Amino acid sequence: MAATEQGVEAVRKGEGEEEEEQVVNPWEVSAGKGGIDYDKLVDQFGCQRLDAALVDRVARLTGRQPHCFLRRGLFFAHRDFNDILDLYEKGEKFYLYTGRGPSSEALHLGHLVPFMFTKYLQEAFKVPLVIQLTDDEKFYWKDLTVEETKRLARENAKDIIACGFDVERTFIFSDFGYIGGAFYENMARVAKCVTKNKAVGIFGFSSEDHLGKYSFPPVQAVPSFPSSFPHLFAGQDQLRCLIPCAIDQDPYFRMTRDVAPRIGYQKPSLIESRFFPALQGENTKMSASDANSAIYVTDSAKEIKTKVNKYAFSGGQDSIELHRQLGANLDVDVPIKYLNFFLEDDDELEHIKKEYKEGRMLTGEVKQRLITVLSEMVARHQRARALVTEEMVDAFMAVRPLPNMFC
Amino acid sequence: MAATEQGVEAVRKGEGEEEEEQVVNPWEVSAGKGGIDYDKLVDQFGCQRLDAALVDRVARLTGRQPHCFLRRGLFFAHRDFNDILDLYEKGEKFYLYTGRGPSSEALHLGHLVPFMFTKYLQEAFKVPLVIQLTDDEKFYWKDLTVEETKRLARENAKDIIACGFDVERTFIFSDFGYIGGAFYENMARVAKCVTKNKAVGIFGFSSEDHLGKYSFPPVQAVPSFPSSFPHLFAGQDQLRCLIPCAIDQDPYFRMTRDVAPRIGYQKPSLIESRFFPALQGENTKMSASDANSAIYVTDSAKEIKTKVNKYAFSGGQDSIELHRQLGANLDVDVPIKYLNFFLEDDDELEHIKKEYKEGRMLTGEVKQRLITVLSEMVARHQRARALVTEEMVDAFMAVRPLPNMFC
Repeated sequence: MAATEQGVEAVRKGEGEEEEEQVVNPWEVSAGKGGIDYDKLVDQFGCQRLDAALVDRVARLTGRQPHCFLRRGLFFAHRDFNDILDLYEKGEKFYLYTGRGPSSEALHLGHLVPFMFTKYLQEAFKVPLVIQLTDDEKFYWKDLTVEETKRLARENAKDIIACGFDVERTFIFSDFGYIGGAFYENMARVAKCVTKNKAVGIFGFSSEDHLGKYSFPPVQAVPSFPSSFPHLFAGQDQLRCLIPCAIDQDPYFRMTRDVAPRIGYQKPSLIESRFFPALQGENTKMSASDANSAIYVTDSAKEIKTKVNKYAFSGGQDSIELHRQLGANLDVDVPIKYLNFFLEDDDELEHIKKEYKEGRMLTGEVKQRLITVLSEMVARHQRARALVTEEMVDAFMAVRPLPNMFC
Repeated sequence: MAATEQGVEAVRKGEGEEEEEQVVNPWEVSAGKGGIDYDKLVDQFGCQRLDAALVDRVARLTGRQPHCFLRRGLFFAHRDFNDILDLYEKGEKFYLYTGRGPSSEALHLGHLVPFMFTKYLQEAFKVPLVIQLTDDEKFYWKDLTVEETKRLARENAKDIIACGFDVERTFIFSDFGYIGGAFYENMARVAKCVTKNKAVGIFGFSSEDHLGKYSFPPVQAVPSFPSSFPHLFAGQDQLRCLIPCAIDQDPYFRMTRDVAPRIGYQKPSLIESRFFPALQGENTKMSASDANSAIYVTDSAKEIKTKVNKYAFSGGQDSIELHRQLGANLDVDVPIKYLNFFLEDDDELEHIKKEYKEGRMLTGEVKQRLITVLSEMVARHQRARALVTEEMVDAFMAVRPLPNMFC
């Protein structure tokens, strides 16, 4: 966003004369030439690496194979996720919190990633989930009316519900719909703990930014606290919260974790993902405003085919002869990256990578496989979404107790 | 408040070597030696003087004698009050909005002034009234918990109800209790229109002030807009609003009036009072934190007697002989100022002023009359407040339609 003073969250890459800066914050993700350096990001943000031992532990505690996003390191960083597992091992539960800023009608595949992963966590741990739709945020940051962001929130809720969440364990709310009461009280408690200087340091707000932006960080912070949901968690003020999200949201929760103990609350834990790359390559995440940078959940099979064939950046060589000889560069190949997210069969994925890398498989063949995977996935989503009624949206968004949410 | 950069709202007095600054904003009122210069304040703030012609017009339109606060120029400034009267003359109604920041258990007499005047306006014009208790503001600015400010809001509501408001035409709300829905949407609309720089210019916030302070101005702004109260004013988005308040609240409503047309709303009109002086003299308004600077509505007749006799600053002379000879200086005499507010009989007030000024009446006699007036007034308030039940508070604060509010 223009509002953000670049460099506040910047991570310097390399020390040579041409310094490339990667900028990662909730409003801007831009990498240097080589793509996002996630290792440096972990150090810069001060979060922890999610290693194989932790993934194994998740497998053991849940008694099921970890989600491929975990197995493949796509969720790669965390904050105190081990604490959540320690408590879980002792028989204590927690709740999940994730969200979305409803700035566009249709979600793209990158938007589905946290929801697919959150659904897995909900099923594996059998825990309740709150999903925040930050329509107020999008009103503040985009040229949209209140009415339009509210409409988009409701439309986006349908796509989220289509991911298969359990209505018995899931509360979806929009800020314009839900803010008030205990939630607003917690917003005030957080706001009182964060100076303007501190907010500028974390979020890079400028003097010409409006008060809405300065008001917003507490709104995204407080779903981390169970007391913001008295209809769900009355009397459970110390219940722990686990937040699955892309790592660009980390600044909000650094702030939240800083404030939590000062107001007598538990720090939320986080489990953080890489960005889902744009079709054009990995130096940015997908952009909802460039239709050709992403596959949308509303795209037809034909659109998916065209986009993948036309725009998906290839790591293959320029000629078949050269490709057979040198093989593909998987590090920059977008079809492989997409299959890494969405081709569930580990063996097939490894096979494709090997064959492609060694030149026996061509870009066209990999793209063909990707087109099949994405078309099936998107068609499945479209069928599920077509079944989501207004009544179901009302049911998920009703302010209600969830009596069996831990069962 | 320490938070306020002095001088932001300062009005320079005089051009000599010893410049005295008067500072008037929602958190600080301090005058130079000669007391607040209200004339300069009107010019500095850019509001309008409330002249005799306007008072006469109120008398004509309401068919009753204007309140003594109007007759005596205690409400002395306004913004577009004439517009409200123009519309009223054509048969259009408006609504009233006033409020209080609940930072202390007991109100002092100065706190009653806007409520007494608002009650008169409500009765004279037969219009609905919303009263905002800014418990969130007091949480932000004082060392109080959320729970304590909520409790104080409810206690203060009892004192406000004791002023005699009509439950059929009055909605009292606290921010922690009511914020949400259409009200929060309007907060967002206002926040989006005010840059941080602009807010600093108006309110003097510093970089070390917390986000709560930066978030608050829209909260006090939006009761100016009828759409913030859909249970009262659904479909009446252009209904005009009149705000009776002390002039230190003007900065909030300068901001509100600046924003209103940009979001399609009517600017609120204002009618603004002088400050009720401290017992010690007119260079400040009363302070809730210095018990001897004010008469509280909880004071006993004995306390009132002691405070008036001991602390009320006298404009009389040092000896009876000198007083008989020179008379009193009414410009600095606090008993006269208090009688100016609360002695309803114009003839008696004029008589006392004349006799006192010309030395025929002594300070002790004037104070005796004031003690009687205040004791009766406070006893009346205490009797009324003792009759205010929790159920009445619930009734005034219930989010409900007011079907006969314009009758």
